Amino acid sequence: MILLLIQAMPKHAISPTRQENYPEWYQQVIKAADLAEVSPVRGCMIIKPWGYGIWQLIQKTLDQHIKETGHENIYCPLFIPLSFLEKEADHVDGFAKECAVVTHSKLIQDDEGKLIPASPLEEPLIVRPTSEAIIGDAMSRWVQSWRDLPCMLNQWANVVRWEMRTRLFLRTAEFLWQEGHTAHATEQEAIEEAEKMLQVYVDFAQNTLAMPVLVGEKSESERFPGAKATYCIEAMMQDKKALQAGTSHFLGQSFSEAFNIEFTNDQGQLQKAWTTSWGVSTRLIGGLIMTHADDDGLLLPPKVAPKQIVIIPVLRKGADEKAIMDRCFEVQNTLKKIHYDDAPIRVVVDTKTHLKGRNWHWIKNGTPMRIEIGQQELEGQSLRVAMRHQGEKFSTTLETLTLEAPTRLDQLQQHCFDSALAFQKENTQTIDSKEDFYHYFDDNNTNGNGFALAHWDGSKDVENQIKKDLKVTIRCIPFEKSEAGTCPFTGNPSPQRVIWAKSY
Amino acid sequence: MILLLIQAMPKHAISPTRQENYPEWYQQVIKAADLAEVSPVRGCMIIKPWGYGIWQLIQKTLDQHIKETGHENIYCPLFIPLSFLEKEADHVDGFAKECAVVTHSKLIQDDEGKLIPASPLEEPLIVRPTSEAIIGDAMSRWVQSWRDLPCMLNQWANVVRWEMRTRLFLRTAEFLWQEGHTAHATEQEAIEEAEKMLQVYVDFAQNTLAMPVLVGEKSESERFPGAKATYCIEAMMQDKKALQAGTSHFLGQSFSEAFNIEFTNDQGQLQKAWTTSWGVSTRLIGGLIMTHADDDGLLLPPKVAPKQIVIIPVLRKGADEKAIMDRCFEVQNTLKKIHYDDAPIRVVVDTKTHLKGRNWHWIKNGTPMRIEIGQQELEGQSLRVAMRHQGEKFSTTLETLTLEAPTRLDQLQQHCFDSALAFQKENTQTIDSKEDFYHYFDDNNTNGNGFALAHWDGSKDVENQIKKDLKVTIRCIPFEKSEAGTCPFTGNPSPQRVIWAKSY
Repeated sequence: MILLLIQAMPKHAISPTRQENYPEWYQQVIKAADLAEVSPVRGCMIIKPWGYGIWQLIQKTLDQHIKETGHENIYCPLFIPLSFLEKEADHVDGFAKECAVVTHSKLIQDDEGKLIPASPLEEPLIVRPTSEAIIGDAMSRWVQSWRDLPCMLNQWANVVRWEMRTRLFLRTAEFLWQEGHTAHATEQEAIEEAEKMLQVYVDFAQNTLAMPVLVGEKSESERFPGAKATYCIEAMMQDKKALQAGTSHFLGQSFSEAFNIEFTNDQGQLQKAWTTSWGVSTRLIGGLIMTHADDDGLLLPPKVAPKQIVIIPVLRKGADEKAIMDRCFEVQNTLKKIHYDDAPIRVVVDTKTHLKGRNWHWIKNGTPMRIEIGQQELEGQSLRVAMRHQGEKFSTTLETLTLEAPTRLDQLQQHCFDSALAFQKENTQTIDSKEDFYHYFDDNNTNGNGFALAHWDGSKDVENQIKKDLKVTIRCIPFEKSEAGTCPFTGNPSPQRVIWAKSY
Repeated sequence: MILLLIQAMPKHAISPTRQENYPEWYQQVIKAADLAEVSPVRGCMIIKPWGYGIWQLIQKTLDQHIKETGHENIYCPLFIPLSFLEKEADHVDGFAKECAVVTHSKLIQDDEGKLIPASPLEEPLIVRPTSEAIIGDAMSRWVQSWRDLPCMLNQWANVVRWEMRTRLFLRTAEFLWQEGHTAHATEQEAIEEAEKMLQVYVDFAQNTLAMPVLVGEKSESERFPGAKATYCIEAMMQDKKALQAGTSHFLGQSFSEAFNIEFTNDQGQLQKAWTTSWGVSTRLIGGLIMTHADDDGLLLPPKVAPKQIVIIPVLRKGADEKAIMDRCFEVQNTLKKIHYDDAPIRVVVDTKTHLKGRNWHWIKNGTPMRIEIGQQELEGQSLRVAMRHQGEKFSTTLETLTLEAPTRLDQLQQHCFDSALAFQKENTQTIDSKEDFYHYFDDNNTNGNGFALAHWDGSKDVENQIKKDLKVTIRCIPFEKSEAGTCPFTGNPSPQRVIWAKSY
């Protein structure tokens, strides 16, 4: 009898499930929610309306935080002359390997009518993989005196890195991001800026994306090319792997030296500025999916849901179609006057009534709240409400929902965060021996393979060996220090535990 | 005595003035308002915070209008494979001449450590000059049935056209824009869409940018490469030249044929879709400058002013600095609670009190309203207000200004539009003979060289001859038809007058 019941239950909307095949599940969620698709241009994606809607909400909130912390937006050229890239040695090594190089400025047709490049450039240009070089050069003109500091800039832009293995949102040849670039008079001020912007990312990830993160510094081998310190936020995905969700770099004086960002201090002395850079990208959408989606598709925290509520007309045979549609728009007009998260609630009426499977459409794309209105609801002046998380369903009135909607959305937002945090805590383990560590990260250990908190003596050799043996890396050295102890790999003293994990 | 008075008057902030040297005045306004600068990358500009602030306001308002008219935002790849560009013959001709071609995906260092391109691509890519090709290809996958139509998309992006002669905002190798792309089941629907989006641009230009525009269709020789009809808005700059401020194209079935955008109609027949595209760019900022700026610098219509009100503390010797600063912030906090144009008023306190010439700084960057608060205003609980247009100054109280601010900003907005419209009307002339036409466009005719309304028989030869002789082109064939008449150049009948002008 129980078996029969189970068989009668609806199948999950996403096939395969997370359990069956996680990487394939990820692709299928993107497809089912219509977020993005692979383009015919190698490694580049097309972000579709629902995906871009999420990105615009990310931009809106983050742009506000970036401005509130004193930064101004600029826009710098897409292209970087090769000679600029050459100026900072580590930076060259980091980015020259994977970039799009523009060598010609014209096309002509050959004898067969095929287009071929013409007019070679004197100096090739690369499509920016990041903008330290071009903005460093600009800052060298803009910063002359201590009065010009701090110089605090941000840019929303597309960047290109010729990645070999790409995956929608997580790693694409072209992606969208914001990149902050600042210059300061003192080392201390620059370090504080890099830390402050990391905190902006922490707050944004946790409060807006409902994505709990661990916060710390990268080990030297994981630093941004050219940085003196890289700070990061790391989130746990549902396959227990880590995703680096944002980074903030203290660049020391490397870029000031390379690009001559010099200023006269208030004693009339010429000094090099101290710089930072920091960024988050469309990768966050990948993180959002892998944090919250389930086997029925996407589940969006309301703060980044392009639509927070959908009203679905149910037009069965004999229903008064016009009256039902009118009622749907009446409900929409009432609900969109309510505010949630400092903005009017984003509520839509699904007018694609000629298409089938609309309820599942809105489940799969993760819309937080669905309201069904059919003949019965019309006659009873009631609303049939379904919440995306936990599948809760209830009937209510428009008056009640008007009062409750913000709270219900906020509960879902909080639920997303709480579930993800519980999952992260369940799958984080303190480990004290090499044997336990290797067992924890055994590919077949379904109880392991999450985050490990283990001591480390600071040596690169240990990092390299573990990466080679287990594909595990140090995700961060937490700002919040544990007790000191002994490195389980060498027996040397360790100042604190660090976070180890497999990662994207 | 009169002469002495004139000499004692302050000089204009911008040198040269519009009269003295218009093109150089334009560059100097951009510099004085700190909007943008030429970058070290040929033809590309750096948009600085004040300029990007204007762009973000343009984006915000226009994005809303684009969504309200039923369009959704997407993001397509920066790169277009050569084979895609080749598919539409007119399009190739129009864009192959001036584009950035990516041929390599890696850099290596030569023996001298210099970076050189490596890993040649199998098929070169061009950096998008516009996205009809890549979006046409996507639409061929997305549009299968009449149920998928209309397909109404928009994209905010950077594009690159390798222009030889560039000028900040007006013509740059890389620029920012929005490009709308739609597909429809019928020709009529596509034409209506192209017309509707032109109307969105008209409303935006006139209501938001306070830029009066003339509206019509381009002649065949001025059409977008691949279009069946190009509609446009044309504005008159203060040197009486025309600026094309936005275009909307009915593309017929050219791109559907090239990219196979086919659908099954409700009778089960396979048909080609009808497409449109439409765009405006950062060029609008150039138009904004040349419509409203004066010899003291920029003058911004409040709706696109990054700051609408600035509060400038006047800290003369003996002034109570702390009390004055506190009062400034108090005034700011009161004013930012007021709404104008459906948003809180954008008001800032100028805290750069260590710098000189702050009043002129805010005049030159075009901030609509300035409030000075010094010891006298502090003691009298008054505010000293100066409006950017007409230089009006008056004293008032915070209570009164709180009530009046939205009206005063709106008066300035309206003043900007009215002045520009009056200027356009003064400098538009109906012309009926070839002789008068040639005299009107004589380079030395300071009373001429505006817009001419003259008849035209529709022949390309006439267009070519006039372009050759006078550098004058047909800016548009107005939608609002004049009486029929006789072409002054050929004596042939003419269905209506068209607008002729020199242009950017």
